[in-house]
Amino acid sequence: KVRELLNHQNISDVAELINELPEYESQIVANMSIHRAASVFKILDLNAQKTIIRELPPFKTAELLNELPADDRTDFFEELPGKVVKELVKLLNPEERKVTLSLLGYPEGSVGRLMTPDYISVQVDYTCQEILNLIREEGKDSETIDVIYIVNDKGEFVDDVQIRQIILASPDKEVGDIIDYRYITLNANDDQEVANQIFKMNNRVALPVVDDKNILLGIVTIDDVLWVANEEFSEDIQKIGGTEALDEPYLEMPIARLFKKRIVWLVVLFLGEMLTATVMKYFEDEIAKAVVLALFIPLIISSGGNSGSQASTLIIQAMAMGELTVAEWWRVLKREILSGLMLGSVLGLIGFFRVVFWNSMFHTYGDNGTEIGLTVGFSLLGVVLWGTITGSMLPLLLKRLGADPATSSAPFVATLVDVTGLVIYFSMAYMLLSGILL
Amino acid sequence: KVRELLNHQNISDVAELINELPEYESQIVANMSIHRAASVFKILDLNAQKTIIRELPPFKTAELLNELPADDRTDFFEELPGKVVKELVKLLNPEERKVTLSLLGYPEGSVGRLMTPDYISVQVDYTCQEILNLIREEGKDSETIDVIYIVNDKGEFVDDVQIRQIILASPDKEVGDIIDYRYITLNANDDQEVANQIFKMNNRVALPVVDDKNILLGIVTIDDVLWVANEEFSEDIQKIGGTEALDEPYLEMPIARLFKKRIVWLVVLFLGEMLTATVMKYFEDEIAKAVVLALFIPLIISSGGNSGSQASTLIIQAMAMGELTVAEWWRVLKREILSGLMLGSVLGLIGFFRVVFWNSMFHTYGDNGTEIGLTVGFSLLGVVLWGTITGSMLPLLLKRLGADPATSSAPFVATLVDVTGLVIYFSMAYMLLSGILL
Ligand SMILES: [Mg+2]
Ligand SMILES: [Mg+2]
Ligand SMILES: [Mg+2]
Ligand SMILES: [Mg+2]
Ligand SMILES: [Mg+2]
Ligand SMILES: [Mg+2]
Ligand SMILES: [Mg+2]
Ligand SMILES: [Mg+2]
Ligand SMILES: [Mg+2]
Ligand SMILES: [Mg+2]
Ligand SMILES: [Mg+2]
Ligand SMILES: [Mg+2]
Ligand SMILES: [Mg+2]
Repeated sequence: KVRELLNHQNISDVAELINELPEYESQIVANMSIHRAASVFKILDLNAQKTIIRELPPFKTAELLNELPADDRTDFFEELPGKVVKELVKLLNPEERKVTLSLLGYPEGSVGRLMTPDYISVQVDYTCQEILNLIREEGKDSETIDVIYIVNDKGEFVDDVQIRQIILASPDKEVGDIIDYRYITLNANDDQEVANQIFKMNNRVALPVVDDKNILLGIVTIDDVLWVANEEFSEDIQKIGGTEALDEPYLEMPIARLFKKRIVWLVVLFLGEMLTATVMKYFEDEIAKAVVLALFIPLIISSGGNSGSQASTLIIQAMAMGELTVAEWWRVLKREILSGLMLGSVLGLIGFFRVVFWNSMFHTYGDNGTEIGLTVGFSLLGVVLWGTITGSMLPLLLKRLGADPATSSAPFVATLVDVTGLVIYFSMAYMLLSGILL
Repeated sequence: KVRELLNHQNISDVAELINELPEYESQIVANMSIHRAASVFKILDLNAQKTIIRELPPFKTAELLNELPADDRTDFFEELPGKVVKELVKLLNPEERKVTLSLLGYPEGSVGRLMTPDYISVQVDYTCQEILNLIREEGKDSETIDVIYIVNDKGEFVDDVQIRQIILASPDKEVGDIIDYRYITLNANDDQEVANQIFKMNNRVALPVVDDKNILLGIVTIDDVLWVANEEFSEDIQKIGGTEALDEPYLEMPIARLFKKRIVWLVVLFLGEMLTATVMKYFEDEIAKAVVLALFIPLIISSGGNSGSQASTLIIQAMAMGELTVAEWWRVLKREILSGLMLGSVLGLIGFFRVVFWNSMFHTYGDNGTEIGLTVGFSLLGVVLWGTITGSMLPLLLKRLGADPATSSAPFVATLVDVTGLVIYFSMAYMLLSGILL
């Protein structure tokens, strides 16, 4: 009866049920038809997947893994330790084993890891009727039949054709007469973010993947690209916030693991921020002479951090969208110098008037209100300009060095700018206040 | 010849060409077959679209707008001022006009705005052969034929069926015998982020959209959802960085408009951060008595900002992914209190030892190294804990109030925590140092 019920639910509803009843995960999966079980398994999160594989009897695990589409199997295996993968691969039948090992051979984050070899391909002399017949034979195992792939006798990719065109054409027409020999392909070694951009711009539900010699290796379907897009963006957001990428839903993650993902960057940032104490120590005498200077420290350095965070996330986002490449750094720099001057001027003016106005009302800052105001104002201009430049150039520099631009997180930029911001502020104070307060 | 050339390029290549030769945008579009022109137009960015519409002769504009798929037309119109939309709608033929007005009637950011009414629907008594015939007649105008929609005579949605199933079944089988009467629908009033989640979990290339009475209104295709996902995430990233959402590629945006998007939050944050000057003023005497206290101010408040930024982005990301709802705030709070204590303890210990160790080496901080170290250490614990709590609760609170959680940007949280962090630090100093230094 439970079996009956499970087989009449939507896949996503079963997945939800599993999330709500973690103690029954493996029973639920074991009690579904194997095809549906595989469909559920592939949308579960990693923890649930691991538990299920651990708890299922080996013959069930074998059945499940063999049923899982090749691309989803890769996606699961790539998250497991090598030792475990080795054991699990043994459970696969020879054909699936070969496919899996070859897919895992592509670098992590590459298009190759997203591929499935389950597609329908024909040569140019197939007629539309023959293609429809082929679909009837092989369509069940294919990931999609919405697009059919045409190859020549060397396995080189020739073009793809939508099922719509096959149905619309007369049955005895050869597919070679329908296609236009113009196509879009992905390269197996391309980055997954590239796949996202190409799918966006080309309105396809599936794209062929070829190697450098244009041999058709597999296809990537848009549903998997949607997952990648979600994953990549989550990663970017988490990194921008100054955590390592989580790889798991926040609420599912054990506190200890969450702690590990967070503490590393917090400590790095803390050690960097310690330089502020060193800089401050260096200016200790000045602070003692003019305590009033200390009052504006948080205001000034944080403004640099804020403008830096803005600049850095704008650039990270533009790069993630493929709108911006490292080669365009000079254009970015020019724009950001101008932006920094404009933004800094506004904050500088507000800061100046705040000090002068307050002082004229309450004499808060003593006899040298105007000079202090000028110091604060010009420091703000300098710090904001500096923050904007640092924030915008850092992601580009990181990318240039082969690192992830999103590593230039908002807290990272803020920390960098805090240290330099203090130097800017105290230098400005020297210039404008020596002989007066200093 | 140019025309020839343009008609033999991939759509995405033509779009790139237009981006590279902005002075020819409208000529390029004018010289393509109207169907291809529409396909190019819909993937261009807003600025290029606007220019083209402005520059094309009215009859061409009319042709283009009528050819544009309904969903892409909505997507373009919703970015234009009402007055312009009114003019452009006049260019549409009566049928397209009706569709467009009804789609624009759905709220911005809703599934209704993503819909297209160009799908193929049949009743349950259609045979597979009849459906294939229908596709041959109507398939050209349909957004997709990968899925066929079944409705009853009242227009209520009954189920959908993949083209694969139609082809695999025997030609005289009625579609009512193939379908399982189990389906996933979107509601026209759902949020677009919901559509993203439902597509992710259900492995479909298109989903039906119904109203509250289950009447089929249109369909949403996954390619448009990929665009939405990209848009929504870009928006989130930009907001997290403390800018208003840009709506345009960074490099395309005129500096003046970019400035406007950035200055608003910078000024708001600056005004908020001014409170630090007020708080500092309040503790001016203490700083004068113990200048050493000032040295650690940037270190302490920024640690709160960093842990707050972490917490806030983790929560924003989890909510964007649909992993977390406001109702679970209590679970989040418990986790974050624990996390905050752990993170704060680590930073607090490092801070304490840094002060004590430095002091034992260089006597940097005078005779009360241990007491100062304790003040710094406990302040760090308090500030990090506070930052974590604030950062995690703020996005949930914003959502609860109907605002966008991503508004609790990293700089926003940092500013909040800077002000309270100073209060925590100086209170701690009072408790641990009065009678000694204060
Ligand atoms: Mg993966
Ligand atoms: Mg082609
Ligand atoms: Mg797949
Ligand atoms: Mg998948
Ligand atoms: Mg990335
Ligand atoms: Mg990745
Ligand atoms: Mg839109
Ligand atoms: Mg169904
Ligand atoms: Mg569309
Ligand atoms: Mg579209
Ligand atoms: Mg959003
Ligand atoms: Mg939006
Ligand atoms: Mg700060």
